[in-house]
Amino acid sequence: MTGLGEFALIAHYFARPCAERQGVGDDCALIDVGARTLAITTDMLLEGVHFLAGAQPEALGHKALAVNLSDLAAAGARPRCFLLDIAMPRADETWLAAFCRGLFALADEHACALVGGDTSRSAPVQGAAGAIMISITAIGEVDRGRYRGRAGAQPGDDIWVSGRLGEAALALAIRRGQREVPSPQREACLRRMDRPEPRVALGCALVGLATASIDISDGLVGDLGHLLERSAVGARLRWPDVPRAEVFRGIDVASQQQMVLAGGDDYELLFTARPDDRSRIQALATDAVALTRIGQIEAEPGLRLLDGDGALIEATLHAFDHFASGS
Amino acid sequence: MTGLGEFALIAHYFARPCAERQGVGDDCALIDVGARTLAITTDMLLEGVHFLAGAQPEALGHKALAVNLSDLAAAGARPRCFLLDIAMPRADETWLAAFCRGLFALADEHACALVGGDTSRSAPVQGAAGAIMISITAIGEVDRGRYRGRAGAQPGDDIWVSGRLGEAALALAIRRGQREVPSPQREACLRRMDRPEPRVALGCALVGLATASIDISDGLVGDLGHLLERSAVGARLRWPDVPRAEVFRGIDVASQQQMVLAGGDDYELLFTARPDDRSRIQALATDAVALTRIGQIEAEPGLRLLDGDGALIEATLHAFDHFASGS
Repeated sequence: MTGLGEFALIAHYFARPCAERQGVGDDCALIDVGARTLAITTDMLLEGVHFLAGAQPEALGHKALAVNLSDLAAAGARPRCFLLDIAMPRADETWLAAFCRGLFALADEHACALVGGDTSRSAPVQGAAGAIMISITAIGEVDRGRYRGRAGAQPGDDIWVSGRLGEAALALAIRRGQREVPSPQREACLRRMDRPEPRVALGCALVGLATASIDISDGLVGDLGHLLERSAVGARLRWPDVPRAEVFRGIDVASQQQMVLAGGDDYELLFTARPDDRSRIQALATDAVALTRIGQIEAEPGLRLLDGDGALIEATLHAFDHFASGS
Repeated sequence: MTGLGEFALIAHYFARPCAERQGVGDDCALIDVGARTLAITTDMLLEGVHFLAGAQPEALGHKALAVNLSDLAAAGARPRCFLLDIAMPRADETWLAAFCRGLFALADEHACALVGGDTSRSAPVQGAAGAIMISITAIGEVDRGRYRGRAGAQPGDDIWVSGRLGEAALALAIRRGQREVPSPQREACLRRMDRPEPRVALGCALVGLATASIDISDGLVGDLGHLLERSAVGARLRWPDVPRAEVFRGIDVASQQQMVLAGGDDYELLFTARPDDRSRIQALATDAVALTRIGQIEAEPGLRLLDGDGALIEATLHAFDHFASGS
């Protein structure tokens, strides 16, 4: 397998014992600074891997920060500031102005200041223009002793997800010309892909309620797998309960499952909580962001996907690999 | 002008008012966390821009962290931890093992833990393999109220530089086949380019002594210019006093000045201090890292380069643009 699987292995290559409270492998690193605790995360957006050449710069500015704020949200951290590294083939002021509009609109919304960075030309490769590369490191604050990572899920906990899943994956199929979707659903899907809204307020409100959480960037099943592995538990997931948009009604079940369960780029929060806290959690739902129970944590390792009758579903899902592997 | 000049303009594009104590434009961003203060910096190394294709991975691992630790050293910050984003065309375990050797040897030397990161494939460009891209964010601690930036230089202060300058630039000319240098000086130059040693201990020891400092990454004259601008002062620089290696004796003065004054990639510390502190500063010199007074801060804006008789030198220097602009 090429692509993300291979590169997930690389991530393990860099994992070493570390005196800091949280190291490589969680959504955020945690470092204690005096009596306070910072959560730090970093994510890249690369042309040709995470976005297509010619992508709208305003959307890119938004998304580059959004995917990092989504990691802070998963950890229940309040965004504080960020650093930006950006390389591009040439200094195009129109492009930069639009990129900054998207970037700073989201930064201002979350009071997250740009405090540093590095800029460079990207080198041409064998005569072709260099690629755009964006790397952001975001820093937030968490309450000492109330940090929530991926490792706290307990048997009996509910599994919750925010919003609805699969539209970003559908948008990718639309962009690739593999699916046709009528307006305005088409635009809604594209917006989900281009302008994900990090669930920062929800992530902070869940401090003390959620027992574990992760943001869904690589697909529900894959990211739930990370949470289960870190918590050393298993789960059952009820496929009919997994929230998805109306637009999926007209799509065959196998494709639905691929996009909703493994599509990636959702940037919703997946979290676990005790059944006693159901009403307190449901009270955090808004008109814009629903909260849905989709399964249960179990002691038995592994993930069991169930249909409406509680029967096991055998789903063949392909890992999300952004734009690169074709498919 | 293309290259760094153009991209320096981009950096200004991202500069906005910021509630944090230090924002875009200094070696480090400063953020207060409770009673403590963190210094944060980020730097990229891009294939074809900052290093040549086929560069030794062990040296790259060292240098990617070294350039960031050099920024912490300039701010007098004690390194604490770092995050690594890396993109490469394929997961090559031999390459990665060597990269990690270089990276972690330097990290361990400075007790600076890798706490997070992101890894990705870099996309092929029109059939050619994608480039290697490395972005590191390093975090250090400074004493509240004793932070030293670029802005504190005062008329009458001495200008000091650590080590000696120009060998990395000479190494670039050697690699390009433009200069021939006999062994072992050749290897010494290449080592200066490939394995810069960040002046972390010196940077910390200068807390309370240096009035301003910067690390020399883009060349002495250019980086001194940044310090003068931020401090709103000028300077006189004595060319004969600027420390350089024996190997430069055999090279014409114009080329010497280009490499020693504007060569870049030196990663030495340039700092200012009161004349009363000369002996305390000189006591920080070691056999490996000399400290040399090379000029004086003056109230009159601008930089005046003087020969041994105190006469003004007109030097035509080209800004350092790594590997990209040819020449």
